[in-house]
Amino acid sequence: MSFEEMWAALLPVGRDEATGGYHRFAWTPPELECRAWFLDEARRRDLDVEHDPNGNMIAWWLPEDGSRGDAVLTGSHLDSVPGGGAFDGPLGIVSAFAAVDLLRERGAGPRRPIGIAAFAEEEGARFGVACLGSRLLAGAIDPARARGLTDADGHTFAEVMHNAGFDPEAIGPDDDLLGRVGCLVELHVEQGRALREPVGVASAIVPHGRWRFDFAGEGNHAGTTRLPDRRDPMLPFAAMVIAAREAAERNGTVATVGKVRVVPGGVNAIASSVTGWLDARGPEDKAVRRTVAEIDEAARVAARPHRVSVDLAEESYSEIVDFNHALRDRIGATLGGVPVLPTGAGHDAGVLSARLPTAMLFVRNPTGVSHAPAEYAEPADCLAGVEALTAVLDELACSDRARG
Amino acid sequence: MSFEEMWAALLPVGRDEATGGYHRFAWTPPELECRAWFLDEARRRDLDVEHDPNGNMIAWWLPEDGSRGDAVLTGSHLDSVPGGGAFDGPLGIVSAFAAVDLLRERGAGPRRPIGIAAFAEEEGARFGVACLGSRLLAGAIDPARARGLTDADGHTFAEVMHNAGFDPEAIGPDDDLLGRVGCLVELHVEQGRALREPVGVASAIVPHGRWRFDFAGEGNHAGTTRLPDRRDPMLPFAAMVIAAREAAERNGTVATVGKVRVVPGGVNAIASSVTGWLDARGPEDKAVRRTVAEIDEAARVAARPHRVSVDLAEESYSEIVDFNHALRDRIGATLGGVPVLPTGAGHDAGVLSARLPTAMLFVRNPTGVSHAPAEYAEPADCLAGVEALTAVLDELACSDRARG
Repeated sequence: MSFEEMWAALLPVGRDEATGGYHRFAWTPPELECRAWFLDEARRRDLDVEHDPNGNMIAWWLPEDGSRGDAVLTGSHLDSVPGGGAFDGPLGIVSAFAAVDLLRERGAGPRRPIGIAAFAEEEGARFGVACLGSRLLAGAIDPARARGLTDADGHTFAEVMHNAGFDPEAIGPDDDLLGRVGCLVELHVEQGRALREPVGVASAIVPHGRWRFDFAGEGNHAGTTRLPDRRDPMLPFAAMVIAAREAAERNGTVATVGKVRVVPGGVNAIASSVTGWLDARGPEDKAVRRTVAEIDEAARVAARPHRVSVDLAEESYSEIVDFNHALRDRIGATLGGVPVLPTGAGHDAGVLSARLPTAMLFVRNPTGVSHAPAEYAEPADCLAGVEALTAVLDELACSDRARG
Repeated sequence: MSFEEMWAALLPVGRDEATGGYHRFAWTPPELECRAWFLDEARRRDLDVEHDPNGNMIAWWLPEDGSRGDAVLTGSHLDSVPGGGAFDGPLGIVSAFAAVDLLRERGAGPRRPIGIAAFAEEEGARFGVACLGSRLLAGAIDPARARGLTDADGHTFAEVMHNAGFDPEAIGPDDDLLGRVGCLVELHVEQGRALREPVGVASAIVPHGRWRFDFAGEGNHAGTTRLPDRRDPMLPFAAMVIAAREAAERNGTVATVGKVRVVPGGVNAIASSVTGWLDARGPEDKAVRRTVAEIDEAARVAARPHRVSVDLAEESYSEIVDFNHALRDRIGATLGGVPVLPTGAGHDAGVLSARLPTAMLFVRNPTGVSHAPAEYAEPADCLAGVEALTAVLDELACSDRARG
């Protein structure tokens, strides 16, 4: 299967025909179909698939001597945000299979194991915590907290793992697996417009996090309740949305409210509670922290006159990831001076950087649109990405220097 | 079955045990269970039930001579808003059955038919148009438009009617039925705190309506999209919410945003579109119209710098209902000088006032809370409501003056 054939096979899975957006949430039927596709592609290439206890999958191409240590991991994830694009995640996995094919065509064989990983629940679209699979693998989230995470229908992560054939009590860090991995190189579509050449290398992931604002007021009749008698939580929620933009502008960060839940949600009822989720990121930790603190303060000031309570919870926070310089420089040298750039998006390679050297290759995104149906990369740029990944895997795992 | 027994039988139906709120949407299982209860209560009293083509039900107590014209209608509705209270709707129907029982106990028989009505989809919680059953009956909504209304799952009203055993092509005005009705007296829990005595009579329903604001921007990644590149529809939506409160304060009206839909609704995605529903009401038409125009203008001003489009649609509008003075005065005289007060809530009696003399009795609400679990009326006030309705039905339908 060529890159184009693999891409065409995945393209219809989980796509909303009306919008063109993808809905591939962890362990829902479309994502399970993507997992089945992954297993097929591994089988087609005689790669053995290892399942870790956290739902991550790795298709292994082992050296002839059968050694299993000091592996070079690549790959990405199969799941999507609600209404996401086709490239975010799958591009890294399809490119990895294509790179293995190119290496074989060119007669290269691995001296270190090459593993193609599909990390679970990278987007956090179902259970709210981004990079859940790699976080569990790396020991970056308490397994008990992960078991209790719930999806929109109230199903816990433990239930869903159990139904998918996993033992929810066994989730958590897998030091045996991590001990066998020497480094990780994840290829990903670029998610802004900063990359002007077909392929680039990541310098850093900027600090980013998710916060939940719960506004609690009093449900009442929209027609018969006088303005001064109201305790309407929608009003401070709206003030929080506007404050988020203003705080981001002041602090040189970005802040977004893209999800809201209104209870009860009737047209003719004043809400009893409104929950708004805030995503905030910035070049440095202090700027992000200040942004969130200013938004919180604005929300509280807006809530007081309406006698609405405000509760702020940090759902996740990731400090800056400065990718391993030696690995990044080696990749840069292999590719011959491609651009090096930071990203505002979180990735499994960022989470795993706490445990092993990681790096990322980016493929150009002409519009910068991501997490939306218009997310795109030109076919020629995708093939340039495959060539770059092939060269990097050759350099790291196949050449004589792999042992260096 | 006494008032208390009937009330206890309905109380658990469709109640969310966690919040105490009711979810009885038209033709969903809880509302169907309420309808079955209605049919049982009618059967228990030997009342024949008439189904009109629009899902409204009327349980008839006919005079001994079997005459079917010049009827006195009472009753209310069984459906609820999301997370609504127990009283809004059912109180009028339970009180009507209890009033028939009292009339019979006291040896009164009707000279005019007495009909207990259960109107369909009064709250508009499922299909978005309040008083849909009485609007169709009265010819106040185009049947073709009604057939095409959709619920949150995308089911059309036509589909739901078909599945409930109705012919969706037959919905619309029922002039035969309306021609047999002389007047309607609906009993309802008061929805504000204006009524300080157990029972009152409605003077008017203030003008009220529902509007939908659609904000369309561009979905994108919350982390990688620079602030100036964003077209985030959540920002003008928030400005609209705040403008609604300010416009209501300026114009002496009320305006509420209690329902919002965000697409795609991911934490780490800038929304591509946000829809917010506005409920606005006020003492006079001009003030409500001005309120909505000011909110619309503020939404457009807020949307422009974000390159977000705004679309405003009027989903329903009801001009002021000044209840029939003769009927209201006759009821007032029968009850001996009870308070006469307007309401900000819409009712089937308001819709049907365009076709026949209608009136409303209100039962005191000690907190003024409505459309929420805390909605309440004291048992003694409920029984005072039953006594008042009994007296009114006796006066209108049973005494010699009924023919006057």
